[in-house]
Amino acid sequence: MEIMKKLEARNPRFKEYTEMMISRNKFIQFLGFEITKIEPGYTEGEMDFKEMHHQQNGWLHGGITSTILDMVQGFAAYSMVEDGQKVFTVEAKISYFNPGISDKFYSRGGVVKPGKRFHFCEAEVYYLKGAEEVIVAKGSSTMAVI
Amino acid sequence: MEIMKKLEARNPRFKEYTEMMISRNKFIQFLGFEITKIEPGYTEGEMDFKEMHHQQNGWLHGGITSTILDMVQGFAAYSMVEDGQKVFTVEAKISYFNPGISDKFYSRGGVVKPGKRFHFCEAEVYYLKGAEEVIVAKGSSTMAVI
Amino acid sequence: MEIMKKLEARNPRFKEYTEMMISRNKFIQFLGFEITKIEPGYTEGEMDFKEMHHQQNGWLHGGITSTILDMVQGFAAYSMVEDGQKVFTVEAKISYFNPGISDKFYSRGGVVKPGKRFHFCEAEVYYLKGAEEVIVAKGSSTMAVI
Amino acid sequence: MEIMKKLEARNPRFKEYTEMMISRNKFIQFLGFEITKIEPGYTEGEMDFKEMHHQQNGWLHGGITSTILDMVQGFAAYSMVEDGQKVFTVEAKISYFNPGISDKFYSRGGVVKPGKRFHFCEAEVYYLKGAEEVIVAKGSSTMAVI
Repeated sequence: MEIMKKLEARNPRFKEYTEMMISRNKFIQFLGFEITKIEPGYTEGEMDFKEMHHQQNGWLHGGITSTILDMVQGFAAYSMVEDGQKVFTVEAKISYFNPGISDKFYSRGGVVKPGKRFHFCEAEVYYLKGAEEVIVAKGSSTMAVI
Repeated sequence: MEIMKKLEARNPRFKEYTEMMISRNKFIQFLGFEITKIEPGYTEGEMDFKEMHHQQNGWLHGGITSTILDMVQGFAAYSMVEDGQKVFTVEAKISYFNPGISDKFYSRGGVVKPGKRFHFCEAEVYYLKGAEEVIVAKGSSTMAVI
Repeated sequence: MEIMKKLEARNPRFKEYTEMMISRNKFIQFLGFEITKIEPGYTEGEMDFKEMHHQQNGWLHGGITSTILDMVQGFAAYSMVEDGQKVFTVEAKISYFNPGISDKFYSRGGVVKPGKRFHFCEAEVYYLKGAEEVIVAKGSSTMAVI
Repeated sequence: MEIMKKLEARNPRFKEYTEMMISRNKFIQFLGFEITKIEPGYTEGEMDFKEMHHQQNGWLHGGITSTILDMVQGFAAYSMVEDGQKVFTVEAKISYFNPGISDKFYSRGGVVKPGKRFHFCEAEVYYLKGAEEVIVAKGSSTMAVI
């Protein structure tokens, strides 16, 4: 992952505000993905790989990969808005580097260019093969701030 | 949706082959999305909207939208390969046009430019407001044929 | 090209306003691309293919293709803003369907989903092989309205 | 720019091969963009900003930005193929972070995930404001190896 610049949150309660948004998100719970770290403009998360996450070859479904990337980028954007502001995904692109086969998947990402009207974000999904990280997919997105 | 050119399947059993791939896909079942039509290079599907599909504002989660688009495009690509060949998403882009709030969501899409090495695909997710279609999102993707 | 919905311009002088923007654009002149039609949310253009437009195999350079797509989408977006508003490309994706070899290239495209804050656009570059259109590339973009 | 992993060239003459492709490219000369560094899977380049590069506000035209990104990514991909193989852009996305106003623009980028059938690439266009780099745009692409 690109070494991201340290960003300053506009909302002193950015962590609580982002956590509140996560708690209201039903699909993240249904999927079993968990956000494990929230910093200004940056989040991390992880998910145990279960049979319900399989595509036709037993690999991590590409739709889940894109969902995880959307969550990591979207909640990182939420950590960089003012209290009461909302974040919406305008567009997202996902490049699939490697098939996802592992017990557990990790993701990290954040705001690479903050703005008043929208944040540009990037994120990765990866797994661990011993000590080595294998990138499953990389995503970029435009998040509108409203 | 763009009026797609009629394509010719390379596999006379394209329908059975695509249906077999769908039946092996665990996540499509978990999500409750159903493919309702398979033609050469084209598929349609639908999904009832349930609470587990909500993002933080009660709308259709963007990750589900992108998952549906991936499925419709990917299975349309499967209908355009030879028997035994596999399809993988190389990359996908999704543009989110309108928030998704409805009882039911529909999707349709397919191969807009077939090739030996990859198929270019497009698809839409929409809902019905009376007789009018409201587009939730539009996606494009590159599907590798291996 | 998708049959686009008829849009209504917000600026009664949309044509003059868009033409003024085109006349100020130095790179469009340098490239030899000409906008031949302006309607609300829709433009067309064309360019004679010259040696300076070649990439290493003598085909239309992909950068020119993306430039043409950006112009057609951007000026179509200009035809759908209020007088005095500006348009900026937030992001663009281009899929390259076929190599571009011809005497002349055409492009058309426009706003597929207008909005107050941004317009979603699409466009194509193509050439004529007899009466048949061969699509060189298809693009989608997010145009910010400021 | 992401700190890219050191890659190993498959062609011992990767530099001469890439330089030959650059020399055949007419549009790069027409534009005045120059590749200044070629390493396995990585290139850098620069361009003086002239009036012919202007869009309607006097800024660097987005089409040129996308052209530069395409060149840097494409030639980086050429440095990672076997002798005689060709590279084609399958698709590219560009996110525009900041308006481009400067005397000179720089670009760097390369292969972030090499493969037999295609290379995934990324690149940036930036200018210098004193010692600080200002990112104009960031791009990602899929380059087919044939």
